[in-house]
Amino acid sequence: MRAGKAEASGEKSLPGAAAADAKPMRRIKVTLSYDGTDFHGWQIQPGLPTIQEAVERVVAEIEGAPVRVTGSGRTDAGVHALAQVAAFSLRNPIPTDNLRRAMNRLLPAEIRILAAEETAPEFHPMRDAIAKTYEYRIFRAEVCPPFERRYLHHYPYPLNVDRMAEAAPLFEGEHDFTSFAASDKSDELGRSKVRAIFSSSIECFADRIVYRVRGGGFLKHMVRNIAGTLIEAGKENLGVKELTVLLRGDAGVKAGPTVPPNGLFLIGVEY
Amino acid sequence: MRAGKAEASGEKSLPGAAAADAKPMRRIKVTLSYDGTDFHGWQIQPGLPTIQEAVERVVAEIEGAPVRVTGSGRTDAGVHALAQVAAFSLRNPIPTDNLRRAMNRLLPAEIRILAAEETAPEFHPMRDAIAKTYEYRIFRAEVCPPFERRYLHHYPYPLNVDRMAEAAPLFEGEHDFTSFAASDKSDELGRSKVRAIFSSSIECFADRIVYRVRGGGFLKHMVRNIAGTLIEAGKENLGVKELTVLLRGDAGVKAGPTVPPNGLFLIGVEY
Repeated sequence: MRAGKAEASGEKSLPGAAAADAKPMRRIKVTLSYDGTDFHGWQIQPGLPTIQEAVERVVAEIEGAPVRVTGSGRTDAGVHALAQVAAFSLRNPIPTDNLRRAMNRLLPAEIRILAAEETAPEFHPMRDAIAKTYEYRIFRAEVCPPFERRYLHHYPYPLNVDRMAEAAPLFEGEHDFTSFAASDKSDELGRSKVRAIFSSSIECFADRIVYRVRGGGFLKHMVRNIAGTLIEAGKENLGVKELTVLLRGDAGVKAGPTVPPNGLFLIGVEY
Repeated sequence: MRAGKAEASGEKSLPGAAAADAKPMRRIKVTLSYDGTDFHGWQIQPGLPTIQEAVERVVAEIEGAPVRVTGSGRTDAGVHALAQVAAFSLRNPIPTDNLRRAMNRLLPAEIRILAAEETAPEFHPMRDAIAKTYEYRIFRAEVCPPFERRYLHHYPYPLNVDRMAEAAPLFEGEHDFTSFAASDKSDELGRSKVRAIFSSSIECFADRIVYRVRGGGFLKHMVRNIAGTLIEAGKENLGVKELTVLLRGDAGVKAGPTVPPNGLFLIGVEY
């Protein structure tokens, strides 16, 4: 039964989704890339264009019934993905290669399905993820190329990149990221803000700085707040001592500013 | 006198531009890059966003009076420029480096002034150009990266690239490009359609095909019609014999289709 499966995988069932059908339910995992510039993030919001809504719409069109599409996590408004992972359950027996092609035909060019495969019925893209990697891309030259303005944070001011490169690995390990969590109420109140970061590093290529971070999970705005903090380190406004205090998780201490979403890319999700 | 200078350089004077002022008139040459996706081309059109209109608006704001900005040539709606050249006359004594910065502050991020310099009073970016280079970029893989969809012509169908590479140099030399001119009436009727092409070649990088052409001048839609014809050669719909007929300039013979503007870049203008 569709309703039972939806409950088992922690998804809300959608009205109309319980129609009895003899075809077996298949669990589909898709890898997708998107330009988040013109979307209000991953998660469905009434009346606003979101990635999840666009993907659910085309899967529903293929299935002929409403389908809940679950992502590995939310990305904020304006954030991009090189390889986000999502999953949904389908009765339509369409081969996965044809499904990928049909989805790309129906989706706007800003969202592309890179791969589609059949997976275990219990696969859950958020709960089963063991690591995620993000990149935050900063462009330092005075003039930002117009063709990349949507995909870079333009910061044409002095930065001590050595200080940033020194500071980045301090985030590795298990820390209480309270100081790096979004201050709005949408964040899970009362829940632990301890997260494990597996790697955290800065790379420079000419006028470009790329901050790359791989971790078990991230709080809302966490990567953008870390990137903003690393820029503060590059401005020599804070050093190792101040960063150590920030990583203690004292509720009263706030990290650097949340930098703009356009520089942020979800690079991949590991299972 | 402003009016006299404007006449001498073949520009129409603008209302209000003749205000007497003791400061000498300077001729400014700017090199600019733009993402043409959201513009209706270079040339001013009433009620539509164009590059020329956007640049004239910011120069007028800096000058405190209307200023005519002349380009090296029109680019069509949706066509991009890595390095377009334009010129205008200014009484404001602002240093050119500050002028460039002020223009970039006022312009939308889709248009960037890469360089500004003072030039000879008689400099005319269209009449003085000796060569222009364009690139037409084709992407062949099945899935077009969402971050490049505005800057590539996505053509995920079989192409014989060797045939295209063979055909491209046939355009070199002086030819009557009647078969490659836009068929609409906006093209200069009755004028010669003979143009000189200095180089014309195809390069391949993995899933990308780049057609690069350098010539003394181009008719409306000419590069896109050549690119469309090269794609027809790649589809093995026409060969050297048919191309030779097209390059004879018979009015009744039409070249391949005009391919979409998003793959086209004005790469540079030589003086």
